[in-house]
Amino acid sequence: MNLASYLASKKEKIDRTLDTILPKPDEYPEIIHRAMRYSVFAGGKRLRPILALASAEAVGGKEEEILPIACSLELIHTYSLIHDDLPAMDNDDFRRGKPTSHRVFGEAIAILAGDALLTLAFEQLAAVPEDLVPPERKIKVIKEIASASGSRGMVGGQVVDIESEGKKVNLPTVTYIHQAKTGRLITASVRIGGIVAGATPSQLDALSVYGENVGLAFQIIDDILDITGSKEKLGKEVAKDAVRGKATYPGVVGIAEAKKRAFEAAEEAIKALSQFGEAARPLREIAKFIISRET
Amino acid sequence: MNLASYLASKKEKIDRTLDTILPKPDEYPEIIHRAMRYSVFAGGKRLRPILALASAEAVGGKEEEILPIACSLELIHTYSLIHDDLPAMDNDDFRRGKPTSHRVFGEAIAILAGDALLTLAFEQLAAVPEDLVPPERKIKVIKEIASASGSRGMVGGQVVDIESEGKKVNLPTVTYIHQAKTGRLITASVRIGGIVAGATPSQLDALSVYGENVGLAFQIIDDILDITGSKEKLGKEVAKDAVRGKATYPGVVGIAEAKKRAFEAAEEAIKALSQFGEAARPLREIAKFIISRET
Repeated sequence: MNLASYLASKKEKIDRTLDTILPKPDEYPEIIHRAMRYSVFAGGKRLRPILALASAEAVGGKEEEILPIACSLELIHTYSLIHDDLPAMDNDDFRRGKPTSHRVFGEAIAILAGDALLTLAFEQLAAVPEDLVPPERKIKVIKEIASASGSRGMVGGQVVDIESEGKKVNLPTVTYIHQAKTGRLITASVRIGGIVAGATPSQLDALSVYGENVGLAFQIIDDILDITGSKEKLGKEVAKDAVRGKATYPGVVGIAEAKKRAFEAAEEAIKALSQFGEAARPLREIAKFIISRET
Repeated sequence: MNLASYLASKKEKIDRTLDTILPKPDEYPEIIHRAMRYSVFAGGKRLRPILALASAEAVGGKEEEILPIACSLELIHTYSLIHDDLPAMDNDDFRRGKPTSHRVFGEAIAILAGDALLTLAFEQLAAVPEDLVPPERKIKVIKEIASASGSRGMVGGQVVDIESEGKKVNLPTVTYIHQAKTGRLITASVRIGGIVAGATPSQLDALSVYGENVGLAFQIIDDILDITGSKEKLGKEVAKDAVRGKATYPGVVGIAEAKKRAFEAAEEAIKALSQFGEAARPLREIAKFIISRET
C-alpha cells in the first residue's frame, strides 16, 4: 500500500466531514465561527481521526460509521492546541506556519473558540444517527474521549507540563506528561475505532497496546524534532522546549536513547497487531511513518 | 410548601453528589483538582440542577435518576463563570465574595480548570448507570446540554456580550445575549428534567416555555440587581455592568420597564405549568422566587 495516498485520501474525507460539522463562517456570531474554522483548517495532519479510521478498518468496521465520530477527536485536539498556545500557557505566536488563534482573534475569542470546539465535539458525538452507531456504543465512545481529555488525561498532562517548566524533572514526570497530554487521546482514538466497529475484548486490548505505544513514539519524536528539526519544515520555532525549560524525553535521557525508545515503542505497537492480519496494514504503516516523519 | 427548605434540601443533595463526582483534592495533579473544587464549592445557588430536579418532579420522575445528570449542569455553569472572569474576558477579581479562580491559581490553571469541568460534565453524563437512565435518553440529554452550551448557545452569548461592551446596543442584541448566554442552559436544565423523567411531547413543550421565561426573568433581575443591589448581599462589586458599558436589559429599556418584563415572564412561566397540577408546585415557587430575590 502507498501510505501517503492513504493518508491524503482519509484526510480529505475528514476535512469534508469537519466542514459539514462546523457552523458556517457567516453564521451569527460570525467571529466565533470564523475562529473555530481558522484553527481546525490550519493544516493539521488529522492523525487522531485517521488512527480511528484505520483502527475500525482493522476490525472490519465501515468507514461511514466511524468518520463522523473520528472528527470529534480533531475538534478536541484543535481546542487543546488553541488553549495551549494562549499567552497564559505556552504563549505561542505561530503554529504550523500560521499565526495562532489569539494572535488573529484576540485572547477572549481564542479561549471561547476552544470552549466551543470542545463542546461541539460532544454535541457531534451525540448527534451521530442511531442507525449508524447505536446509543450504547455512542455512550462508550463519549466515556473514552471525555476520560482521555479531562483532568485525568490531556488537561492533567498540560497542568504538569506547565508546572514543570524550568524545573529539573525526572523520567516518571516526563512519562506522565506525555501519556496524559498526548498518549491518552491517541489511545482513545485507536480504541474508539475498535469500539464503533464492534471489536472483541481481545481485539480492543490489542488496539490499546498499539495506541499507547504509537502515542509514546509520536511524542518522543515530537520532542526530538523540536531539537533537530528545521523551522521551515515544522512551521514553528525550533528549540523552544529547551529555551522554556520544558520537560522532554530527550532532555531527560538524551537524543540517542530517546530515539531508541521511540523505535522500540513503534515495534511494540506493530507487534500488538498480529491477530488482525492484512486489515491492520494501515495501522502498521502509520506506526512506521510516525518514527520516520520530519514534521 | 416552604421554598427555602426545599431549595436547601436539594442544594445539599446536589453538593453531596458533586463531591462524589469531582476528583479528590489530593489526586494528582492536585492543583487542578483543587481549582475545580474551589470554584464548584464557592457558594453557588445550584439554580440549574434544582430546576432539573423540580422539572423531573413535575413529570413524576425519580430524584435518583435526575440527580447525577443535574450535577453536570453545575459543572458547566461553573466552567463558564471561571472563563468569564478571566482577565481576557470580564477581568473579575471576586465572585460571590471570594477571589476568582485565576486570582487564586493563576490564569493557566483557571483556564484548564474550566476546560476540565466542561469535559467532566460530559464524562459524568455518559457515566450515569444504564439501569438508572437508558442510553437513548442519555444521548438526548447530552445533545440538549451540548447544544445549549456551544457557539450557538452559551459561548455565542458570551461572544456577543464581550463584543458589545462599550457599544450602544439595541433590544434584539440584548435579548440575544441573554437568551444565548443564560437562557439556553436554563431552558435545557428544565427540559432534561422532563426528558429523563419520560415527559410526553406536550409536557416537554410546556417545560420549554417555562424554562425560556424563567431564564429571561432570571437574567433581567440579575441586570437590575447589578444596579440596585448592595455589594454585601451580592458578594461582588455593583454597577459593574454600567462601568464596563455592558449590554443590559435595564440599560436599554429602563429599570421600571425591565422589572415589568421580568414579572410578565415569570407569569408566563407559571401559566405554562397548568397541566402539571400540584407536582409543579416547586417550579412555580422557583419562578416567584427568581423575581423577588435580592442576591
